[in-house]
Amino acid sequence: MLDIDYMKLALSLAAATKGQTSPNPQVGAVVVKNGEILGMGAHLKAGTPHAEVHAIAAAGENARGADIYVTLEPCSHFGRTPPCADLIINSGIKRVFIASVDPNPLVAGKGIARMQEAGIEVVTGLLQQEADALNEPFFHFIKTKTPYVTIKAASSFDGKTAAKTGDSKWITSPESRQDVHRLRHEHDAILTGVNTIIHDNPLLTARLPQGGRNPIRIVLDTNLRIPADSNVIRDQAVKTIIYTGSEIDKSKAEDIKSFGVEIFSFPSRHVPIVDVLKDLGERGIMTLFVEGGSEIHASFIKNSAFQQIILYMAPKIIGGNEAIPFVGGSGADYVKEAPRLEFLKVERIGGDLKIIAKPLREEATD
Amino acid sequence: MLDIDYMKLALSLAAATKGQTSPNPQVGAVVVKNGEILGMGAHLKAGTPHAEVHAIAAAGENARGADIYVTLEPCSHFGRTPPCADLIINSGIKRVFIASVDPNPLVAGKGIARMQEAGIEVVTGLLQQEADALNEPFFHFIKTKTPYVTIKAASSFDGKTAAKTGDSKWITSPESRQDVHRLRHEHDAILTGVNTIIHDNPLLTARLPQGGRNPIRIVLDTNLRIPADSNVIRDQAVKTIIYTGSEIDKSKAEDIKSFGVEIFSFPSRHVPIVDVLKDLGERGIMTLFVEGGSEIHASFIKNSAFQQIILYMAPKIIGGNEAIPFVGGSGADYVKEAPRLEFLKVERIGGDLKIIAKPLREEATD
Repeated sequence: MLDIDYMKLALSLAAATKGQTSPNPQVGAVVVKNGEILGMGAHLKAGTPHAEVHAIAAAGENARGADIYVTLEPCSHFGRTPPCADLIINSGIKRVFIASVDPNPLVAGKGIARMQEAGIEVVTGLLQQEADALNEPFFHFIKTKTPYVTIKAASSFDGKTAAKTGDSKWITSPESRQDVHRLRHEHDAILTGVNTIIHDNPLLTARLPQGGRNPIRIVLDTNLRIPADSNVIRDQAVKTIIYTGSEIDKSKAEDIKSFGVEIFSFPSRHVPIVDVLKDLGERGIMTLFVEGGSEIHASFIKNSAFQQIILYMAPKIIGGNEAIPFVGGSGADYVKEAPRLEFLKVERIGGDLKIIAKPLREEATD
Repeated sequence: MLDIDYMKLALSLAAATKGQTSPNPQVGAVVVKNGEILGMGAHLKAGTPHAEVHAIAAAGENARGADIYVTLEPCSHFGRTPPCADLIINSGIKRVFIASVDPNPLVAGKGIARMQEAGIEVVTGLLQQEADALNEPFFHFIKTKTPYVTIKAASSFDGKTAAKTGDSKWITSPESRQDVHRLRHEHDAILTGVNTIIHDNPLLTARLPQGGRNPIRIVLDTNLRIPADSNVIRDQAVKTIIYTGSEIDKSKAEDIKSFGVEIFSFPSRHVPIVDVLKDLGERGIMTLFVEGGSEIHASFIKNSAFQQIILYMAPKIIGGNEAIPFVGGSGADYVKEAPRLEFLKVERIGGDLKIIAKPLREEATD
């Protein structure tokens, strides 16, 4: 096996933990000596040991003189666990291969410097692009202190998310809808608008064959129009936060709070999306899955408050000038003013297309 | 080389003639003896020799005892050229490999039978699927006597073909727009609605770097609202036919006809799309490229009068409930009533996606 193969292995360990490490990054590590794998590990959950700890523990005394392949720069600070750079130094490892450098400008390179000062050879940049992509939400969160926002939409071939009667069941295939449950499982929070609650009364939980991790439920509801018997209020599977403006019925709010739901009221008449994202960031929400209707999508897009859009497009034509487009709002007056994206990935899923798009030159606006 | 390789070669010869054989099929032929290619040919243009004639002429006397690989069953009837089945028999060829059997039920299998009676070994079905796909428009035309209809649309990621102001320049990339000129070149006729003429005043010609074959221009214009100085009337590059209903200004019609434009008026108040297709079929139009606006597309879709839709989708979000969707009309009331398609192909072109969709189970409705 080549260096790149061991790093690929470390990346596959990291990739397997998707959705369970937040607000920490996904990291994998592999310890190798004389072509033999002595230890492997991944960071599994915030507050538990880092990837390097697992891999070096498995190697035990044999780690002395070995190489370690780790997908993210080992930490140099005392967090909830001791610094991994020190662990590597103490283990007697002689070479460290790193994919991504720590994105936090305050600590970037410090782990590397610490190990180099201890006489360890450090090689960086091996499969960096793949590793950076894996932790894109974490990097975004570290840099902006707001969640990485994924807008999810379902539409017909002609961009409609519901017929003119409001009917939307079901546009996409069972396979696409199952994929959405997997994505819910991988996110820290899920956000929708009050109209979707009123219209569909969804549970917004991750219902997977093997069980799922339920994202915190977020509802944008300027005037607290949510029915008090909605599933997101009565269901106790996971916490719900409702963001409102200043003009709400206080007694209705008290009633809703009695079910354990949190209501966060802004002092303005409207709910400012950017401030919602700041508040969610402060709560440690690293990834936000927006499953809104047409108007919620339009608001996030208008505010440039998204990092990717995942569209499940079904091979059907709903048609009609009065059917509901998956992006509503007032829209652009001219084509040249329309927000520009790039198509990242297209795949087929149960007869549908799953299209992932990102804002063009996102890096520059981050 | 294997049999399949020679047939692939014959198919590639046939594929190269796209857009120039109408109303005839695209056909390629390869003559082989002792592993050596003795002759190759394709049918190049209606009224000129068939593929077999070219390939056998190249082989000359050496054709005796050879094999021929031909993508479509050799003809058995006297058309504008003598029957190829007879030519093959007279050439002394001993084996014939055929991909597609003749789709015309009146003659299907007759060429094969004739050759077999003459003692030639005939093998059918080699790469049949590929060969059938290549001549799908021809097969459709032979069976239905109406053109194979391709609806072409350009939209933003969110299914809009123009902003609410009507602005649509330019949604898609230069590469996509160039591809559209190539498709015009490959079609016998191009159809649009009068609103597109009024709004964009297009030439509807195939403008390609190496020149293009201009499709006949068809305009659906129920009440003859077309401006008399429109490009499609004044430009002499190719014929224009305008289909109208019964209620039109007769003197305006005479004026327009004086430019060599044909006006075909139905006795009904509206223009029946199905009858337009029948008339085009009688004129020998095998392939029709529909580049309409939102309403023309809706009409063709409502009438199930299309064989494929090619959508160029740009990575932009126009947004807005009043922007113009690429399929207008009244649309489906419920999702379950929406016409169902299947996604045949997705490719990237200049940053856009080119998505080809066909009606589901088209075979059954043909």
